[in-house]
Amino acid sequence: MIQFEALFKISYGLYIVSSGNENKGNGFISNTFFQVTAEPPRFASCCNKDNHTASIIKDTGAFSVSIIHTDTDPDIIGRFGYKSGKDTDKMAGLNLKYGKTGVPIVLNDCIAFLECKVIQTIDVGTHLMFIGELVQSEIIDDTKEALTYSYYRKIRKGVAPKNAPTYIDKSKLVSNPFAIEYKKFECTACGYIYDEADEDTRFADLPDEWVCPVCGSEKSDFIEVQ
Amino acid sequence: MIQFEALFKISYGLYIVSSGNENKGNGFISNTFFQVTAEPPRFASCCNKDNHTASIIKDTGAFSVSIIHTDTDPDIIGRFGYKSGKDTDKMAGLNLKYGKTGVPIVLNDCIAFLECKVIQTIDVGTHLMFIGELVQSEIIDDTKEALTYSYYRKIRKGVAPKNAPTYIDKSKLVSNPFAIEYKKFECTACGYIYDEADEDTRFADLPDEWVCPVCGSEKSDFIEVQ
Repeated sequence: MIQFEALFKISYGLYIVSSGNENKGNGFISNTFFQVTAEPPRFASCCNKDNHTASIIKDTGAFSVSIIHTDTDPDIIGRFGYKSGKDTDKMAGLNLKYGKTGVPIVLNDCIAFLECKVIQTIDVGTHLMFIGELVQSEIIDDTKEALTYSYYRKIRKGVAPKNAPTYIDKSKLVSNPFAIEYKKFECTACGYIYDEADEDTRFADLPDEWVCPVCGSEKSDFIEVQ
Repeated sequence: MIQFEALFKISYGLYIVSSGNENKGNGFISNTFFQVTAEPPRFASCCNKDNHTASIIKDTGAFSVSIIHTDTDPDIIGRFGYKSGKDTDKMAGLNLKYGKTGVPIVLNDCIAFLECKVIQTIDVGTHLMFIGELVQSEIIDDTKEALTYSYYRKIRKGVAPKNAPTYIDKSKLVSNPFAIEYKKFECTACGYIYDEADEDTRFADLPDEWVCPVCGSEKSDFIEVQ
């Protein structure tokens, strides 16, 4: 048996992985970034082949990783997690610095960053895994906690976008006998669906100050959908 | 600049990665296990080349991953995290089941497990990365929280063993101007060092019920060392 709920027990952080240069930069929200060796310090970053940033990392041969905190602005998550850089300039208006390899480093809501030079690219199927050697790393804000995927799902009610390594088709989850009672609510601004079947809290029980985890719209901007 | 403290901000879980068969099984504590593709579900596990389990995974072509909870018995962490299976039978006396590939799956303190068949082995330097395709996965206990590396470090005061991908030589950390005031305490049972320079709490301020994160010995079993 494959019980997909078990996969939700794996722990991840959430990061902005960026690449490019001063003229054209792009980035995406990733939860699969991790250290693979200590000596020398090497890291792996997993990226969907269809992801615009994947082709930029291939061209640039380097990437940066911004570790974001638990209070990260929903606009940052919406911008990097649910939009493509093919259509928009994701870096516009952000607080950026440029690394030793020239890649942009997003400093908004960032508690620490790392910059890596790609030394190996591995094809793992739908995704590429970039192995990078550490070029520089720095703490930006030591007062805040890193945003984890678990916190994002439980507290901020977010879901993985379709091209994430951890995206799970809800139809694969073991069906809940009470599922028929659950309702769905859609954000009229960005289309995000709050599906009670996936959540610990009924939509009506969410606090009034709750906002769309993707675009930051207010609870009153949601409508019930089938 | 490389500021190694920034690496502590990356989020990880803690897992028992096991391999072998009914006659001879072995496992180790890993913090680098993660999903790399959704379709089909594939996972990566990073393992030091010197690690006894690495050679068993190579021979067996499969591995299991037990996701352990925050109250995991210190004996389990000590057994799998700080001892080699070359010298001891780590599986002795444990609650095991055997997977579809024949590998042992540790059920002690386990909230969910996954079993994977290795489809690719990547050399990333000191470590091997095994890419595995999901064979089965199951929730064992949905009432407990997964143990994270951050929780292990902050709450349980644990440190990464030397062959972990995330091991950091303390001499590389930016020196603390007050470090000269910090003291070290050694567990007389297992040799674990509680170094105040790495911790948020002075040894004297730890509660009396605090135990060695490696072997579970009592606070009174520690002696001050230079």
